[in-house]
Amino acid sequence: MIVVLRPEAEPAGVERALVERGLWVRRLRGASQTQLEVAPHSAAVDPREIASIAGVADVLSVELGLPRVTGLPARLTLRGQAIARGQAPWVIAGPCSVESEAHIHRLAEWLAGRGVRWLRGGAFKPRTSPYAFAGHGTEALAWLADAGRAHGLGIVTEAMSPEQAELVAAHADVLQIGSRNMQNFPLLRAAGATRKPVLLKRGLASTVEEWLLAAEHCLAHGAEAVVFCERGIRSFDPSTRNLVDLGAVALLAHVHELVVVVDPSHGAGRRDLIAPLSRAALAAGAAGVMLEVHDAPGHALSDGSQALPPSLAAPLLLELLGPEAAA
Amino acid sequence: MIVVLRPEAEPAGVERALVERGLWVRRLRGASQTQLEVAPHSAAVDPREIASIAGVADVLSVELGLPRVTGLPARLTLRGQAIARGQAPWVIAGPCSVESEAHIHRLAEWLAGRGVRWLRGGAFKPRTSPYAFAGHGTEALAWLADAGRAHGLGIVTEAMSPEQAELVAAHADVLQIGSRNMQNFPLLRAAGATRKPVLLKRGLASTVEEWLLAAEHCLAHGAEAVVFCERGIRSFDPSTRNLVDLGAVALLAHVHELVVVVDPSHGAGRRDLIAPLSRAALAAGAAGVMLEVHDAPGHALSDGSQALPPSLAAPLLLELLGPEAAA
Amino acid sequence: MIVVLRPEAEPAGVERALVERGLWVRRLRGASQTQLEVAPHSAAVDPREIASIAGVADVLSVELGLPRVTGLPARLTLRGQAIARGQAPWVIAGPCSVESEAHIHRLAEWLAGRGVRWLRGGAFKPRTSPYAFAGHGTEALAWLADAGRAHGLGIVTEAMSPEQAELVAAHADVLQIGSRNMQNFPLLRAAGATRKPVLLKRGLASTVEEWLLAAEHCLAHGAEAVVFCERGIRSFDPSTRNLVDLGAVALLAHVHELVVVVDPSHGAGRRDLIAPLSRAALAAGAAGVMLEVHDAPGHALSDGSQALPPSLAAPLLLELLGPEAAA
Amino acid sequence: MIVVLRPEAEPAGVERALVERGLWVRRLRGASQTQLEVAPHSAAVDPREIASIAGVADVLSVELGLPRVTGLPARLTLRGQAIARGQAPWVIAGPCSVESEAHIHRLAEWLAGRGVRWLRGGAFKPRTSPYAFAGHGTEALAWLADAGRAHGLGIVTEAMSPEQAELVAAHADVLQIGSRNMQNFPLLRAAGATRKPVLLKRGLASTVEEWLLAAEHCLAHGAEAVVFCERGIRSFDPSTRNLVDLGAVALLAHVHELVVVVDPSHGAGRRDLIAPLSRAALAAGAAGVMLEVHDAPGHALSDGSQALPPSLAAPLLLELLGPEAAA
Repeated sequence: MIVVLRPEAEPAGVERALVERGLWVRRLRGASQTQLEVAPHSAAVDPREIASIAGVADVLSVELGLPRVTGLPARLTLRGQAIARGQAPWVIAGPCSVESEAHIHRLAEWLAGRGVRWLRGGAFKPRTSPYAFAGHGTEALAWLADAGRAHGLGIVTEAMSPEQAELVAAHADVLQIGSRNMQNFPLLRAAGATRKPVLLKRGLASTVEEWLLAAEHCLAHGAEAVVFCERGIRSFDPSTRNLVDLGAVALLAHVHELVVVVDPSHGAGRRDLIAPLSRAALAAGAAGVMLEVHDAPGHALSDGSQALPPSLAAPLLLELLGPEAAA
Repeated sequence: MIVVLRPEAEPAGVERALVERGLWVRRLRGASQTQLEVAPHSAAVDPREIASIAGVADVLSVELGLPRVTGLPARLTLRGQAIARGQAPWVIAGPCSVESEAHIHRLAEWLAGRGVRWLRGGAFKPRTSPYAFAGHGTEALAWLADAGRAHGLGIVTEAMSPEQAELVAAHADVLQIGSRNMQNFPLLRAAGATRKPVLLKRGLASTVEEWLLAAEHCLAHGAEAVVFCERGIRSFDPSTRNLVDLGAVALLAHVHELVVVVDPSHGAGRRDLIAPLSRAALAAGAAGVMLEVHDAPGHALSDGSQALPPSLAAPLLLELLGPEAAA
Repeated sequence: MIVVLRPEAEPAGVERALVERGLWVRRLRGASQTQLEVAPHSAAVDPREIASIAGVADVLSVELGLPRVTGLPARLTLRGQAIARGQAPWVIAGPCSVESEAHIHRLAEWLAGRGVRWLRGGAFKPRTSPYAFAGHGTEALAWLADAGRAHGLGIVTEAMSPEQAELVAAHADVLQIGSRNMQNFPLLRAAGATRKPVLLKRGLASTVEEWLLAAEHCLAHGAEAVVFCERGIRSFDPSTRNLVDLGAVALLAHVHELVVVVDPSHGAGRRDLIAPLSRAALAAGAAGVMLEVHDAPGHALSDGSQALPPSLAAPLLLELLGPEAAA
Repeated sequence: MIVVLRPEAEPAGVERALVERGLWVRRLRGASQTQLEVAPHSAAVDPREIASIAGVADVLSVELGLPRVTGLPARLTLRGQAIARGQAPWVIAGPCSVESEAHIHRLAEWLAGRGVRWLRGGAFKPRTSPYAFAGHGTEALAWLADAGRAHGLGIVTEAMSPEQAELVAAHADVLQIGSRNMQNFPLLRAAGATRKPVLLKRGLASTVEEWLLAAEHCLAHGAEAVVFCERGIRSFDPSTRNLVDLGAVALLAHVHELVVVVDPSHGAGRRDLIAPLSRAALAAGAAGVMLEVHDAPGHALSDGSQALPPSLAAPLLLELLGPEAAA
């Protein structure tokens, strides 16, 4: 953002007024004039308020091109549930992969019994190695949807390619786009075209601006809504699997007033940090959390190491959902 | 960590038992044997528990050399106040720089009236440019200490070089080491030698392991205690000034059981994110927060853009400290 | 890598022998034994050499699962041209986007006249904003292939989704996978299935190990060869668009003995650094460079700011290809 | 940088003219005017040239406050040797630590015999662990200086604290500031006050702008010159110890026209990449390289794993210095 000064203005005075409002300012000098540059990490202030400061001639900013993201509501209603910052947390739980029909039914039942209303599980799994288990595919989608129906749970699951989008949308209430695909534009378009709400995971090294623009791709092609999901970015520190950026969560929730959830399972990759990071996510402004839960993590077909077993999931779900949620 | 298998053990079975406990495992193969490598982002599990798994011959790990950090208590008592995860939050507040005798007294009075018991303020300021205001120095130390005494506040302030350490320690209850100095080893030694508790800010690109080792430097030279302060690490995203790593906070608080605080003012650099990040910090396991507060941020001599003015500080302090804390 | 010691071995002696060979070593201790951990940033040494050190019982390592990448030759022949470290540089040049039939013919002619034998240009363009120009699509592919044929140039161009792969392969000699799609696994599979050589750009925050595994996806599904393309990773420093990691280039070229090229246009994003970074890339072991060239960058439909105009491209091509290459 | 348009100017035309010159441009819009923002990763163009474009009213930029850095020459003469981009490479070689009087003499003799004219070696060593060898201190300084004198070598060695600066300067031709101390401002001031040339290593997560400002600290306090040393920044990829940023080297050498050297030993941490990265560094514009060499790396007191043994150092020195340099 650039603050243009009136010819007669005293720059230092305007600078003080901007700093007073939480803006980071540097002076720009040219041959004939001085203006003020406002850094992007400044507090959000209405440009009209800035324009009203004595000495300010105009306030200029880059048009990011986010007409549809800007129009998103701060509160969604999905399957009758209000999803927003400050509401009862939206808890999406389930295994990393849908492993078998019996297994997903068993887990769905267990989760429903603890008050969970949304089920996650991968039918198509992105895997770093071509030789790893990549999901049971179409069949698993049907098992998942059926388990959700049987236990009254909404379904969140991932589509990995444009041609899968319709199929996945036919079985899911919310279409998930994975972190590695945040800028897979053909997929974003196809996901949007299904008209389902999209849960858009942040890329491993994506800026907030790129994340918003990725959502705009979905919305421009028809998505009903986009929920942002922070799942950890890449870091230099091996002590956690990824680095959960709760500043970005607070920014989306409080400044952009968007619906954002956090996936602490992938974020930390450590079972022993999931409870405190879930609490922190909600405190930062997240509308909910996405949790990996498995009844026997040692036998999970993928990512069992970060899944919560029932003994750890039960008290966390009780804390998040309250005793009245459980059946 | 390495898990050595007994000759007759079936690796897959031991792997399942490790994954069951939240460990990330890869198989290591040699000419004559197979062992299991456990990634550092695994959940912390007592090696004795691992050793008791059928098929495990031994559990090997690197000795980090942290005898004194390992011995630190999870709870400190400073000026009669219990400082620990889960206790009433330790709130340290004040201006970025100590600007004048009158100013620091005025702020100290205002803060004390809202229940704050700890005052921060810089006498010696690290500044990126050699031509920027670098603090009022020795004189400011005395003003700060005097303001603390007058209003019953403990003092946290920074020493920037070994020869300042004694002087700063004479005026401070807690000696702060800044982020840029986290691996300034002569300073860590000098700070330790004062025998004061040290508040050790994390370096901009420091791993948790390096942070713990920096604390070991202080402790090995005599520091009474070390409090860890997460203040944001460097990121690629310009939308916040730094990136607050609450996963590291949760790790220190819940796994290492150390006392850690968060500085959301430097962490986000954005006044509009300080309240949610303060809540998130405490939810993640921080024992407290360090807040920049200024009665007229537009006139601050440094970092006014991230300081909370009274209108924003008052409700946050009320939320953090409770109505009974205020005078 | 883990070095298992014989029971009677003296660890310090083995450590010295390992350090002598350029390995970074930490001691692992358990209840009954000591082993040595070798860090991944160690020099590559044949495990058999390590096993032959006195006191070493076995050398264990993780099987990365790269059978096909490991089998790739250090030298490719494409369109009769030897492509390898140390050979005459493989120069791929052209515009960011294929803008019109006339335009790509004009550029192809100009490049061919300066000795370039490979033409790049995007028909399908990944764009951060949904409202930006995204390429002329199928039509542009035909223009590009035709321009290549007319001027004797090989074609390198990008496919963005699985269903485009066959079509793109029908027009291209080498199929490009863009940075944002490095872990778009359905696309990697489809690209492999075309049996064309794949030019695989490194993801913005991908490790070398992930990059190799992405290549394995292509190879496992049929790709004839994979060429690795370093195009800059994400960094905290705004003074270059991305950060060119020539250490990774040296690692691939000298240790893994793979064919790697560098795209300094995207890497730096700065026209004024393209010549020195091209030289540095080749010096680090790259087999070639990929350059954006445009006859009128101000009118380019995308990324004109980083394209070299003829006045700058001509001397660089002369330097890279030698005077004898020009027509 | 901001380009102010004349009221009658057509923004698109000016944008084209800026892109034509290699600038990245975004349009800034306000209530009454439009201006153009130029990104920092744009090619460097003289503001007067931009001001001369039709439609441009003024060109504004932030004054970084680098009067002394800006005045530094592109070529230094140290001990009679021209040090600059494009000159015979400035090779500084030696052990990580000065280990004993006999040892440093032996190495100095060996290096001098291969044409090296500058000796490095640490008397005071920053170490991550407080229990690691931290250098032989004052005594080692004398050994180092004596070895340099005996063999006609200039000395580069590190000072770690302000009170060491004078002492180190008394023994060194060039005073080194380590990476962890790049923003240790009291040290920068003390180093400057010795009036010696300073070799300033880049911090692990420092921007180029911060690096230049750190140099300004030295110069403002009296340093005769500053040489910039890129030694790798922190990365997420464990396959190299650090990530050598040769884009930053090219930027300093070609755009800022400063003297920059590269330390590939710390940069890669891998002995097997030091030769290609040395070549790449010089190709990118470095005036020289700093190499760790040890006659018996397995017995080195620190960082032996990255030191070149004579068998590898000899051919690299021959390549860098030419056969005529050797005695």
